[in-house]
Order: sequence, then structure tokens, then C-alpha cells
Amino acid sequence: MPRVTLATIARTSGLSKFAVSRALSGKSGVSEETRRRVTAIAEELGYVRAAPQVPATTMIGLVFHDMDLVNSELQVLIQSGVQAEAQRLGYGVAVRWTHVADEIEEHVRQTAGAILVGPHERAALDRAYATGKPLVRSGWLMPLEQVDQVSGTDHEAGSAVADYLLALGHRSILYVHGMPGYRGRMERLYGLREVVERREDVTFTEVRFDADTRFTEALLALKAGGVNPTAFFCAHDGLAVTVISELLRLGYSIPQDASVIGFGDYSSAVQISPALTTVRVHGRQHGAACVRLIDDRLSSRVPAEIAVRVQIAGHIIERDSCGPAPG
Amino acid sequence: MPRVTLATIARTSGLSKFAVSRALSGKSGVSEETRRRVTAIAEELGYVRAAPQVPATTMIGLVFHDMDLVNSELQVLIQSGVQAEAQRLGYGVAVRWTHVADEIEEHVRQTAGAILVGPHERAALDRAYATGKPLVRSGWLMPLEQVDQVSGTDHEAGSAVADYLLALGHRSILYVHGMPGYRGRMERLYGLREVVERREDVTFTEVRFDADTRFTEALLALKAGGVNPTAFFCAHDGLAVTVISELLRLGYSIPQDASVIGFGDYSSAVQISPALTTVRVHGRQHGAACVRLIDDRLSSRVPAEIAVRVQIAGHIIERDSCGPAPG
Repeated sequence: MPRVTLATIARTSGLSKFAVSRALSGKSGVSEETRRRVTAIAEELGYVRAAPQVPATTMIGLVFHDMDLVNSELQVLIQSGVQAEAQRLGYGVAVRWTHVADEIEEHVRQTAGAILVGPHERAALDRAYATGKPLVRSGWLMPLEQVDQVSGTDHEAGSAVADYLLALGHRSILYVHGMPGYRGRMERLYGLREVVERREDVTFTEVRFDADTRFTEALLALKAGGVNPTAFFCAHDGLAVTVISELLRLGYSIPQDASVIGFGDYSSAVQISPALTTVRVHGRQHGAACVRLIDDRLSSRVPAEIAVRVQIAGHIIERDSCGPAPG
Repeated sequence: MPRVTLATIARTSGLSKFAVSRALSGKSGVSEETRRRVTAIAEELGYVRAAPQVPATTMIGLVFHDMDLVNSELQVLIQSGVQAEAQRLGYGVAVRWTHVADEIEEHVRQTAGAILVGPHERAALDRAYATGKPLVRSGWLMPLEQVDQVSGTDHEAGSAVADYLLALGHRSILYVHGMPGYRGRMERLYGLREVVERREDVTFTEVRFDADTRFTEALLALKAGGVNPTAFFCAHDGLAVTVISELLRLGYSIPQDASVIGFGDYSSAVQISPALTTVRVHGRQHGAACVRLIDDRLSSRVPAEIAVRVQIAGHIIERDSCGPAPG
């Protein structure tokens, strides 16, 4: 048996579809007599009204750079935080992993506003900006770039780690970069440098290593030059895993001979032994803050011409990889 | 004639004050007949119901450091922004100018949450923190200090000014400190340094001067040492006024011989001639952001254990004091 529609009732009653629709929806434009007649025919035919359309949910776009694997754990935390906060505030979330400018622009256009996470290229960002939609960046900006941003307290964290290591008595501190090019890692370095450069009794050195130069080689080269660091601040937890394991292979006891501190507090921080003292980045809170900034824009809570940065303050998490400087 | 009260009506009607009150307020607990009788007596006696009590306004405290005169214009802007945003969100504001720990603690206790502006001493801050009330600081924190903060984009501004001066062709840049000790001024310096230290073709120098050493003397000493800056980044607009006027007295044409850029965009920026190119600090927006952070805390919009920094992005305002580097 074919489904009974407004058209069926219109044919049966001899009325227009428009009149049938008005009659059944209880709206004005038809007489009470017509309404009663149409209702009776609809009941007789077994007409079932379609469920009223659910009001469209306001969608927030979330675009991750799809080739930024080293930050996967942070990305997953951000995504989790975005979804939880969006749900709390009544938004839907449309997630897209891409670095293609066309796709980013199209995705942003289909949403009320969007969060762009990761090292997207200038051309792709400019296409997103040109949509005029509210945007929040999680990632590094040009100085005074006029867009909202959420980040961690990378700079402060570097200074806090410096204070922490100095309080443990360390006077030769090595900053371990790993692969260059991530702006956040430079921020941590600058924060550390600002504290230690004020101290004449502190030796501060930087080391980079990569696939071609192992950390051990870089360290031995430093020591041959007379630098004997007792504390190692690693730009992220992954590097700290390398540093701890290579120091152990060189015969160091940790933390008796050397203190190692990381950044991020990702899974590897408690996988390595000794467990890593590190700076916790509250990734879920980064995501939640992104949603609140979009919400601020959609509700005109902040003047349109003012760009806002939100930083979520981290915490030093003390575990077993740091101790007093060797005597 | 004495005022007619519920007690008068109770005496006249022979009912209890409670019954009279229920009858006149339209609440349950009395018969319709009693309600009519009481209403009639009340009308006859000329009873006027007391105005309902206005619901208590939630008060936000605003504490300025009362000996921080150099920042008066920013403080006034912050106060204006706090009051406008508080009104919009339905809060009252209780303002107090003090640096006395007892007074700060007492003021914070009397409010739902408070904004602390300026260089308050550790002891005073700790007393405020100990109240457990939501607090927002406008002023500098210890690294990773677990309290909410609103500030400008001082660091970014330094980098943006560096990019701006480099684009104008300047290759010898002088940073002018004035009185040391203000953390924001160091941030601007660090932001500038991060950009120029990557450029081998750029000479970067710092100069401090104070009541005892005039800027002219400091500059002439530099020039005697072979440093000839063509661009002067001044830590705040007040210093830029000094620098422009002393350069003019030395016979410089501005911007033909030297470019000067300030920070703040305060009144003096358009009082000095040539008008000052500078970085605008959106002081009212700092104030508004402080109120929104307190509102976030009072409405549990942010988890209690997470501290948040909000930075209001500034803008470079181009006027007449900067131009291409002399050929």
C-alpha cells in the first residue's frame, strides 16, 4: 500500500496541497469546516504526519592538519575537549583532517565558525580567513596576527622549569631541541633562557639532534668541550625518552647523576623508567577553550575588531627523573 | 497618622499577622472569604505594601595598586572596561585603590570575586588568594602561577615592531628601556630580540636612562662606540616623547633621519609632533576580559583547577614618526 501523503489527501478532498497542509498543521488560511473535513479524510486514509524537522544544530568546524603525527596525542586530547564542550554548549562538531586549502575553505564555509589546529600553510589559512567566519587557531601565529588563538603556557613553562632546576641546585642546564621548527619548543627555550641568563653562576647550553646525529654523540661532543650538564630540559616528552635511555646506556644513574625533565605529560612520561618529571599540557582544556572562543564570537561576547589569545596554564608534575644536583 | 502595617490589619481583623500576610500576598493557607475580608480592611485603612526587596547585586571587586602612577591612563581604561562589561553582565563593581594587604583582603572578602590590577606585593596577593574567591590578575605572574590573568600581547608586539622596522629597511635598532623593573617592558624587548637575533645583518642595542642619565648622553655614548641606530623602539609612549624631543634637539629630522616607535597609544602619542607610530593597547578590553573571566568562574564555565591567561591582541598604529631607513 503506497504511503498516504498530503497529495493523496488533496486528490481525495479536491483541495490544493497547500490548503491540506494548512488545515492539518492548524495554521490560518482555511475555514474550520474545511479543517474538520480534511482531518476526517486524513484519519480515514491513515495519514501519518512526518516528524517535525529537528532544528538545525549550529555546527562548529574542527580542522586538524593531517600530517602532524608527532602531536597526535595532543590532537586527540584537543578533539575530546572540543566535543565535550560543544555538547555542553549545544553545538555540533564537524571534524576534518586535511591540509588542502580547497578542503579547508569548503569545510569552514559549511560551519558557523571553525577551529584550525596545527601548522597549516599560509595559503590555506588565508582562504579560511577570507570566508569571514569566526575562527580560532591552535598553533602559532604571526606577531599580532588578528585572529583568536588558544595555546599552552609554553614560555612560562620554560621559566618555571628553570626556577625548578635552579632550586634543586643545578648550575649547568642543557636544553634539548630535537627537530627544529616547532614554535612552541622555541618558546620554552626562550622562557628558560630569560631566567638563566640573569644568573652568572649558571651554564646554559642548547643541543639539537636528529636522525643523523644521535643524542649521545651530541652530548659527548659537548663534554669534550668542557660542558658537563647535570640537568636536561627536553622540548617534549618524546625527546626525554631518548635522553633518559641514552643517558642510562652511558652509565648515568637518574636522578642521582642527572635530572631530566620533559614537556607535555603524554603517555610516554609514565612508560619510561624512571617516570618522567614533566610539564602537563591540559590538551582537553585547550579544546574546550577553542569552543568557548567560537561561542564568544557567535554570541558577540567580544568586539569583532579585537583578537584574543587564551593560554591554559600548565603544571609541573613531579615524578622520579629529577633530583638534587650531584655534589 | 502612623503607618498602616500588617500588625494594624491583624489587630483590626482579629487574624494573625501570618494569615494577613498570606491573604494579601495571594498565597495559599487562607480561605477566599478571609482573603476578601482582609483585602477590604487593608484598602479601607489605606495599607500600602512595602516595595519588594531588590535582589542583591553580585559585586565584583576591583583593586588597583595606588602607587603605580606611571600607568594611570591604562588603569583608567581598565576601570572603564570593567564597569561597562560588569553592567552588561549584570554585576556591580566595588573599586578600591590600595596596596595595603589588610585592606585588599577585606575588600576581596566582601565581593563574589575580584580583579587585582598592578604590581601588588606577594604578601598582599597571598592574603587575597587565601580568601578562596575567584581572582583575576592584571599584572605579571610568577611562571605557571595558578591564577587567572589578563594582559596585552607584549611579547608579540616586540616581534611585530621588529618585523615592521626591518620591512622599512632599518638595520640598526635601539631598544629604549627607561626605568627598569616593569615586566611588560622586558617582554617587548624579548619579543624584539627573538626576531633581530636571527638576522646577522642587524645591529641591536639596548639603552637605559633615568633621572640621572639623560637619553642624549646615553645615545652620544653609543655613537662614540660606533653604533648608529636609525630606529628607536621605546618601551612606552612616555619614553618615546623624551626620545623624539631629544632627537629633535640634536638636529635629527623625524622620520627622515630616525624612526621612533612607542608602545601603548596613550594621549601623548598624538600630543607629540610628529605624531607617534605606536602599538595600541586596548585597555578597556583588558578590563572587559577581566570581568568575563570572573563571570566564567562564578558560572563554573572553566574547571576550577585550570588557570587561564587571556591576552588582548594589540595593533600597530601608523602615524608620522616612522619611515624608510636613511639611504
